[in-house]
Amino acid sequence: MVLDRLQQLTYQVTAIAPPPHPFDPLSTIEIDAVVALVRKQYGSLNFNAVTLYEPRKAQMMAWLANPERAPRPPRAADVVAIAPGGKVMDGIVDLDQKKILRWEHTPNVQPLITMEDLQEVEHVVRLDPKVIEQCGILGIPPQDMHKVYCDPWTIGYDERFGTGVRLQQALMYYRPHIDDSQYTFPLDFCPIYNAETKQIIHIDVPPVRRPLSQAAPNNYHPESIEKEGGFRKDIKPLHITQPDGVSFQVNNRAIEWQNWGIHVGFNYKEGIVLNNITFNDKGNVRPVFYRLSLAEMVVPYGNPEHPHQRKHAFDLGEYGSGYMTNSLSLGCDCKGAIHYMDAAFVNRAGASTVVKNAICIHEEDAGILFKHTDFRDESMVVTRGRKLIISQIFTAANYEYCVYWIFHQDGTIQLEIKLTGILNTYSLNPGEDTKGWGTEVYPGVNAHNHQHLFCLRVDPNIDGPDNTVFEVDALRGPGEVGSAENKYGNAFYAKKTKFSTPLEAMSDYDGSTSRTWEMANTNKLNPYSKKPVCYKLVSREVPPLLPKEGGLVWKRAGFARHAVHVTKCNFSDIDSPEHSTDLPPDSDEEIHPAGRHVPQTSGEPSQGLPAWIEAAGPNCSIDNTDVVLWHTFGLTHFPSPEDYPIMPAEPMTLLLRPRNFFDRNPALDVPPSFARTPSQVASGAGNCACKKSDGSSVLV
Amino acid sequence: MVLDRLQQLTYQVTAIAPPPHPFDPLSTIEIDAVVALVRKQYGSLNFNAVTLYEPRKAQMMAWLANPERAPRPPRAADVVAIAPGGKVMDGIVDLDQKKILRWEHTPNVQPLITMEDLQEVEHVVRLDPKVIEQCGILGIPPQDMHKVYCDPWTIGYDERFGTGVRLQQALMYYRPHIDDSQYTFPLDFCPIYNAETKQIIHIDVPPVRRPLSQAAPNNYHPESIEKEGGFRKDIKPLHITQPDGVSFQVNNRAIEWQNWGIHVGFNYKEGIVLNNITFNDKGNVRPVFYRLSLAEMVVPYGNPEHPHQRKHAFDLGEYGSGYMTNSLSLGCDCKGAIHYMDAAFVNRAGASTVVKNAICIHEEDAGILFKHTDFRDESMVVTRGRKLIISQIFTAANYEYCVYWIFHQDGTIQLEIKLTGILNTYSLNPGEDTKGWGTEVYPGVNAHNHQHLFCLRVDPNIDGPDNTVFEVDALRGPGEVGSAENKYGNAFYAKKTKFSTPLEAMSDYDGSTSRTWEMANTNKLNPYSKKPVCYKLVSREVPPLLPKEGGLVWKRAGFARHAVHVTKCNFSDIDSPEHSTDLPPDSDEEIHPAGRHVPQTSGEPSQGLPAWIEAAGPNCSIDNTDVVLWHTFGLTHFPSPEDYPIMPAEPMTLLLRPRNFFDRNPALDVPPSFARTPSQVASGAGNCACKKSDGSSVLV
Repeated sequence: MVLDRLQQLTYQVTAIAPPPHPFDPLSTIEIDAVVALVRKQYGSLNFNAVTLYEPRKAQMMAWLANPERAPRPPRAADVVAIAPGGKVMDGIVDLDQKKILRWEHTPNVQPLITMEDLQEVEHVVRLDPKVIEQCGILGIPPQDMHKVYCDPWTIGYDERFGTGVRLQQALMYYRPHIDDSQYTFPLDFCPIYNAETKQIIHIDVPPVRRPLSQAAPNNYHPESIEKEGGFRKDIKPLHITQPDGVSFQVNNRAIEWQNWGIHVGFNYKEGIVLNNITFNDKGNVRPVFYRLSLAEMVVPYGNPEHPHQRKHAFDLGEYGSGYMTNSLSLGCDCKGAIHYMDAAFVNRAGASTVVKNAICIHEEDAGILFKHTDFRDESMVVTRGRKLIISQIFTAANYEYCVYWIFHQDGTIQLEIKLTGILNTYSLNPGEDTKGWGTEVYPGVNAHNHQHLFCLRVDPNIDGPDNTVFEVDALRGPGEVGSAENKYGNAFYAKKTKFSTPLEAMSDYDGSTSRTWEMANTNKLNPYSKKPVCYKLVSREVPPLLPKEGGLVWKRAGFARHAVHVTKCNFSDIDSPEHSTDLPPDSDEEIHPAGRHVPQTSGEPSQGLPAWIEAAGPNCSIDNTDVVLWHTFGLTHFPSPEDYPIMPAEPMTLLLRPRNFFDRNPALDVPPSFARTPSQVASGAGNCACKKSDGSSVLV
Repeated sequence: MVLDRLQQLTYQVTAIAPPPHPFDPLSTIEIDAVVALVRKQYGSLNFNAVTLYEPRKAQMMAWLANPERAPRPPRAADVVAIAPGGKVMDGIVDLDQKKILRWEHTPNVQPLITMEDLQEVEHVVRLDPKVIEQCGILGIPPQDMHKVYCDPWTIGYDERFGTGVRLQQALMYYRPHIDDSQYTFPLDFCPIYNAETKQIIHIDVPPVRRPLSQAAPNNYHPESIEKEGGFRKDIKPLHITQPDGVSFQVNNRAIEWQNWGIHVGFNYKEGIVLNNITFNDKGNVRPVFYRLSLAEMVVPYGNPEHPHQRKHAFDLGEYGSGYMTNSLSLGCDCKGAIHYMDAAFVNRAGASTVVKNAICIHEEDAGILFKHTDFRDESMVVTRGRKLIISQIFTAANYEYCVYWIFHQDGTIQLEIKLTGILNTYSLNPGEDTKGWGTEVYPGVNAHNHQHLFCLRVDPNIDGPDNTVFEVDALRGPGEVGSAENKYGNAFYAKKTKFSTPLEAMSDYDGSTSRTWEMANTNKLNPYSKKPVCYKLVSREVPPLLPKEGGLVWKRAGFARHAVHVTKCNFSDIDSPEHSTDLPPDSDEEIHPAGRHVPQTSGEPSQGLPAWIEAAGPNCSIDNTDVVLWHTFGLTHFPSPEDYPIMPAEPMTLLLRPRNFFDRNPALDVPPSFARTPSQVASGAGNCACKKSDGSSVLV
């Protein structure tokens, strides 16, 4: 069986399909082969993850520069498995050599909680006598235990239980009817589930009890809307059609669109990973970013009462935005001509699984790209833009995150995230004070204050890997009003501060200076401005981490302590993937800023970003070298009733904008919708020179 | 002739059409009638503006509450004219009584510069011997003066010339060919034009001269793109069609869409004015905003060298976003099913003029409105949103501003502004240092640092006119880490600070607390949250005014000193519009925050907002009364070469969001794209229950 698989793999790779691009996620065939190899050697295991062991950057950069002659990076898999007794095994499997390069027991960590892990808990909770007892206290009789539900979360970290035992906390709810939203009926106690023994080992019970709410259900499903008067009937259809199809070329997972080149990867933790982003600048294919991803997030809740401090989900590191990703549907999640990509994972039993349509790739009209009218004669150019959107949606228990990577024709990359889904809720007695830690969004429903803090990982490659990060502040010029140098007081300028070390680069947002950050290649100056070519991070939703310094969340979510961190890339020997983890610091491993295995980390010491910076030296030089920029952004959410029972999507966005990168607007050759020059106006021509964006002409 | 006009007006109003809504802009017939009345009494005048004298708020609120029985507010016109000798006349004409209610000489002010005023200057400049001499110094021979162009700006304020004489400054450029962009060839001197005598009265010449640039033109018109390799051919058509038309109802200028009610006004200064904005909340039509507009803006440039301090255009108060508005075209400026509205103005000679298609009203798909999937069984609801967009585009010399008022189904109002067009440029010698005040975006082209600061005027009517404004900051809770009250350090909350007086309400943005501002009706609490119903201003692009306190721009643009000001509405006798300006403070006159007549104000004392606050008393109560909130937002622009020769649109946005206003998500009855309940999943039904947004079903 194992040999069959291996032969099948070899056949696929060598005889039929071209070899996978080194950035491609593992195929189901590759996953199956990895499992077969591991099984053969190590027997029965529960698989937690089998994912691409990404090509080492040094090797990959060499190959990208010269794919014909440079050695192709080896194809390998990164494996996490749980052996009997809860032993966590980390491994690397070489798919070319069909060889296990590394297989190690990693003590005192917990790999992320999979959907299968989550699905088990509710069943156990319903049968547990102590849970049944607690339900009885709240007014739920034993025969109604099938109406009791729980959203299992990782426990985060609870000092009473530590890291050694794999735990989940069960946030408890009730449904009067199977179709009712359970979030209207939160229960006040919290069972702790041991994933190894599949038992409830403890129940946290609050000092003041809150019996089951007697409020009417608050639903959003069609039957409830019909009962309340039905759906509105006044929305006329709006069709978006692309009769000639999309404007992009797809070569397996490499996309070319409007001068952009992008490789679209995907993994179980980060979801979409964009690699080798380039821009064809008049025939010169210029590297822009080596790798872009949402690498982590944390959602701290603001209620200090025990055990709510445990509610601070690291949705990526603890559950995985890939594992939680939705299978998308045409007309529902995206409109127009869609190219989908599937996502392949491993399940606990070691079988490959597929989420169909995990990634949606489509275009949208982007409104006006540029326009100018000469007031003298109404000569004008107006050009409409198009954008390319690479998106996924993932469901983290109650919440939905819609992630849109948007590419613009002017060289801008935009990351937009829409938050929707359902508020996490807790019970509230009639007349009980929320004490300001939450909002009663419906009778008996307390939605706690929370933050959504995302960590964007940017590996810049601005005309090459040696880049430098600057902080840019808009400041008033020197000289008081009336002085010779600033008589009218109107002087202002952009102050650029170079980050020379990771310590200097720990940088907070400053709205009062409209702070931005530039990733620059100081070796290459713009021919006109004489300033280094760069991409600028423009991000305006940048709240500080509100949990306090030294507290639980602060310790565990080191990446969220500052808006920006910069790390230096240090690489191990490019030829020896099996040695790569023996030579710390190895930046190829620096992907997950809260650590590789996030559940039940204590934050003592802090994993991920703070540890890497410490290891590499907070005073090492990050000037003109290969660096990674980590940006934490997001929003602070004080719920209100209009967010309930399901939340209208709340968008947030940031931009990566070219500055001094191009010699001029790189979208000038996008066909205008309408153009008329002064000489055409003067001669009476050009009044009918309107062009549609598809190139055809129309009269106006 | 005058009588003819009046008879025609009477006929129109009484016999054929219904009377105009009191918020409607003046029609061409009304404008003509006003001019006829004024002409009859005062003879020959140059008209600067004839616009709606807006109904007094107290009277209008009474009429809106009871249009059947309350007296209809009188129909009147606000007139600005320039009499011989440059005497500025301000007048009010009652269109019902056909009577001039007020006609006064206003000394020492200059009304805004019209397009006709602007158009005159270039002709004069080209013929002026001193200008010809200056051009010669830069290398332009007299026979090439037809290649010399100027963008005339108001002079702003120049202490050498004061306010008494109506002036413009001519920013000078050159075009090698009529179709070349002049902004690549700025000239270094600046003539001052007297609009009364139509003469150049002075030329500002810099100490260091900058001969005409010898660089090649840098163009964006089709011929130049064709020469450089042509337009890209890889953008496939994307069609947006609405076969059944739009989803909104238009009754003259009143729009009903998705529970929103909006009256769309327009005037020469502010452009779009939205009045009487209501939301039909399950049959209860609730007032939200009495009036919304962009009321002013200022664009200070950051180069302290004389005479660049004069570059700080108040594009609305000095030129008028209505007067500068574009006539929009289907497929160019907007796509889909469009409803246009025209705009009527007066010209200098007193004839009514019309800009066709000044306002575009259309819908767009808004992506996912809300979505949730239950991870247990993949039961889900996904609903797509729609938005309504009311937009205009205006051209302020080199720049274009695209203004989009966007209404969402969830009760949110979004203001989006896109900046495009062309950078204001100044000349730079080869090798000359910009000193950080600008960027060389092309050889010889210095684009100065600048800010775009917009002032949004919000007259809230949150369930009635008595509202209170709060500043809301996201703050860490009390108690150090380890303390009983905040053991894990995760406490955080929304601190709400009531603004009791206009002085307290002078409020700056604070990015570190994610500051927002709430306009609340403290007399009405949300039944669930027990918090006042409110709309929250969420605005993240809020740079401070960078020109310094006490300087020229600071003095003239008082509104821009703080992100938020709040003023109290004080109204004069509702029955006597002719007396309304005799009883200061009269908030019905408090529309233009830099003053009614902005050109050539010295800022001593500051006009508009600071003056009103002083007059009404900075310590008067603004708690639970009729208030107006003024919000200054925008961005600071440090140009770069990719902004040139025409700038890719740079968007900025802000939201007015309902908080504790609705009992629940008000968009739950928007038909879902797909819905499947747990019981449908369990029974195997519902797998094909996908609905398109138009209500039809499709298989998935």
